[in-house]
Amino acid sequence: MTDDLLQRYAELVVRVGAAVVPGTVVQLRADVAHQELARAVAEQAYAAGARRVYVDYDDGHVRLSALRHAPDDALRETVQWELNRLREAEQEGWALIRLTGNPEPHLFDGADPARVTAVPLELAKEFRRILSGGSVTWTIVAAPNEGWAEQVFGEPDVDRLWEAITLPMRLDQPDVVAAWEEHRLTLARRASALDALDLDSVHYHGAGTDLTVGLIPGCRWTGGGLQTSDGRWYMPHLPTEEVFTSPDRTRADGIARLTRPLVMPRAGALVEDLVVRFARGRVVEVEASSGAAMVRAELATDEGASRLGEVSLVDGGSRVRAAGLVFHDTLYDENAGCHVAWGTGFPFALPGGGAGLGPDEMMALGLNQSAVHTDVVIGGPGVSVDGVAKDGTRTPLITDDVWVLPVAG
Amino acid sequence: MTDDLLQRYAELVVRVGAAVVPGTVVQLRADVAHQELARAVAEQAYAAGARRVYVDYDDGHVRLSALRHAPDDALRETVQWELNRLREAEQEGWALIRLTGNPEPHLFDGADPARVTAVPLELAKEFRRILSGGSVTWTIVAAPNEGWAEQVFGEPDVDRLWEAITLPMRLDQPDVVAAWEEHRLTLARRASALDALDLDSVHYHGAGTDLTVGLIPGCRWTGGGLQTSDGRWYMPHLPTEEVFTSPDRTRADGIARLTRPLVMPRAGALVEDLVVRFARGRVVEVEASSGAAMVRAELATDEGASRLGEVSLVDGGSRVRAAGLVFHDTLYDENAGCHVAWGTGFPFALPGGGAGLGPDEMMALGLNQSAVHTDVVIGGPGVSVDGVAKDGTRTPLITDDVWVLPVAG
Repeated sequence: MTDDLLQRYAELVVRVGAAVVPGTVVQLRADVAHQELARAVAEQAYAAGARRVYVDYDDGHVRLSALRHAPDDALRETVQWELNRLREAEQEGWALIRLTGNPEPHLFDGADPARVTAVPLELAKEFRRILSGGSVTWTIVAAPNEGWAEQVFGEPDVDRLWEAITLPMRLDQPDVVAAWEEHRLTLARRASALDALDLDSVHYHGAGTDLTVGLIPGCRWTGGGLQTSDGRWYMPHLPTEEVFTSPDRTRADGIARLTRPLVMPRAGALVEDLVVRFARGRVVEVEASSGAAMVRAELATDEGASRLGEVSLVDGGSRVRAAGLVFHDTLYDENAGCHVAWGTGFPFALPGGGAGLGPDEMMALGLNQSAVHTDVVIGGPGVSVDGVAKDGTRTPLITDDVWVLPVAG
Repeated sequence: MTDDLLQRYAELVVRVGAAVVPGTVVQLRADVAHQELARAVAEQAYAAGARRVYVDYDDGHVRLSALRHAPDDALRETVQWELNRLREAEQEGWALIRLTGNPEPHLFDGADPARVTAVPLELAKEFRRILSGGSVTWTIVAAPNEGWAEQVFGEPDVDRLWEAITLPMRLDQPDVVAAWEEHRLTLARRASALDALDLDSVHYHGAGTDLTVGLIPGCRWTGGGLQTSDGRWYMPHLPTEEVFTSPDRTRADGIARLTRPLVMPRAGALVEDLVVRFARGRVVEVEASSGAAMVRAELATDEGASRLGEVSLVDGGSRVRAAGLVFHDTLYDENAGCHVAWGTGFPFALPGGGAGLGPDEMMALGLNQSAVHTDVVIGGPGVSVDGVAKDGTRTPLITDDVWVLPVAG
């Protein structure tokens, strides 16, 4: 990976992902192993006129010491200064950038599932509120590193991992910003076409999955990015290949069989051959050849953790799929196929974008709330998705992995 | 350096330096290059019962980007959440640990002196207040690394640097905690002997220095550690070989010629052959073969930056001196010989420990206040220090580098 590519990538993150404009305060969260990219992002953010760039490095080994020794309630405690900082971020409209790509995927193997999935609930709730509040921009992007490459390829070949993300990130395009703008519009058109159907539910079927998820009347589908209240587009995930919405938390029934391994967001644990059964919106059964205990621990985090917060459509034309790899990172793997997520839903998916609604009103409309949000991929060859209208009319959206719903443009 | 030595060192930092007790919140500031020790300190802090350990990694390259691009006022701005965090630290009695040992000593070479010495004044002031407030404990210790070793030895021999700090850190002693307790008492006895003299001024002379600094009537000398309001001993610096107090900010006259190169705390710049002339408490002339512009920029930070905040006595028996090296790090070099510091003074040096006094009252007593504090070494072979009483009686304290003032015990 050349320094030129690194700087172009960082510029994409800053300008397209986080929509940094002059005067923006930027908070970048990265692992200490992500230093090289973190420094490039900081440089590009300042070059784009950022007023201040905080780079907050996480260190898995420090967290491991906490998991070994800290009192249980300290792992769940929300501390005041962190809440204050979040509120300052909201007031000042910060850009929040997070780097993923686990440098030590097996660091928490053997940790107590209840402790490794522990979350400061109040802080997590406030964070979710602010992410959806229209003031801040945020983006998640990957930072290739040796440990992650080892997990993907069986050897720490970082250059090969950079090559693998070049296609999904459209860094092969001469004008990468224009390429993303075009792609954003493609996804936005899919979302509009879905909105126009006014669906009552979606039905995922094939490859062992048979799952029907009810939708909130008038819900909005999103694809290709989000907008701040003052109209700036940003990209919460780079890359992105999905159109998605948040379903009715009380209406999910059937079986979801994962077509990709799941890497748990906080625990890092690898979950394989996962099958999850839903009844009236809740997960009622979890089976897996590995990692089931970690999934069950996460589903017990709070009341909403075992209900769905997202349904998402990705077809076989995805550039992430074209990379032909299991990335062992949700940012990439969720963009390789249709998926659902248990845990919190998105206020912007509500009719009217959820404007002016408090948490109780959102919940009453059927939007799920939780401190967790974990995406699980169920799409791929052999999987189809139909939209079902209130009167029972079925519209094929994806048929055997191919997008079939007509879109404008 | 073995893992056993690393863990023993970290335990010393946590238990003797920062006096961590069960329930303590610990904040550790380190450079990203200090990872290995930072992780060991976090582990030992949690093992000592810490409730939470924040490891805040600084990254010089991110700061370099800020120095290149950020608006000038942003470099000096105090942000609210950082103030809030400091106040939370004070309320909860955190332990603050900082690692030094510059991994890239030449990173800011060529930077604009006015920008590289810029400080958020309000935050710095609040920080100084809290460090002296009796609620938090704090300690500064070094983390050997390649860049620092290169600066000291001309080659990145980290093991040799670990060996060099073993003697000053007393890690050669079978019971390092007991060894530090004994050394603490030795320094405390020196401080008591100085207090008993009730000096009006100290006179440093020899090796090109001829400097008289007036003292605040009834000032306290400190050696070997500080106590929290509730009586826990901690060590602000490890190692430490000094007894020191804060002088009258209006009374310093004469010439100070440095016997060691100075490395500027924020800029990292190397200052060589520095000679500073004082008149009526203020620096009025700065000469150096390199780095004079950086010194002048720092002295212009605020009104107190060009006045003295510390006078300190270290004799030739210092274990840092015995290491026989210029460490290019103030934590070590200041403990190799007598020194003074321009910039802020210590409230605990005031009569009665400064209890109950506000900033204006402290200033009226003659205690200096500033956002900076920079120690410069003027002691060594050929240098003597006399204490001068109000009636003009002279008492030799150090004669030609040897401690001569009788002490109890």
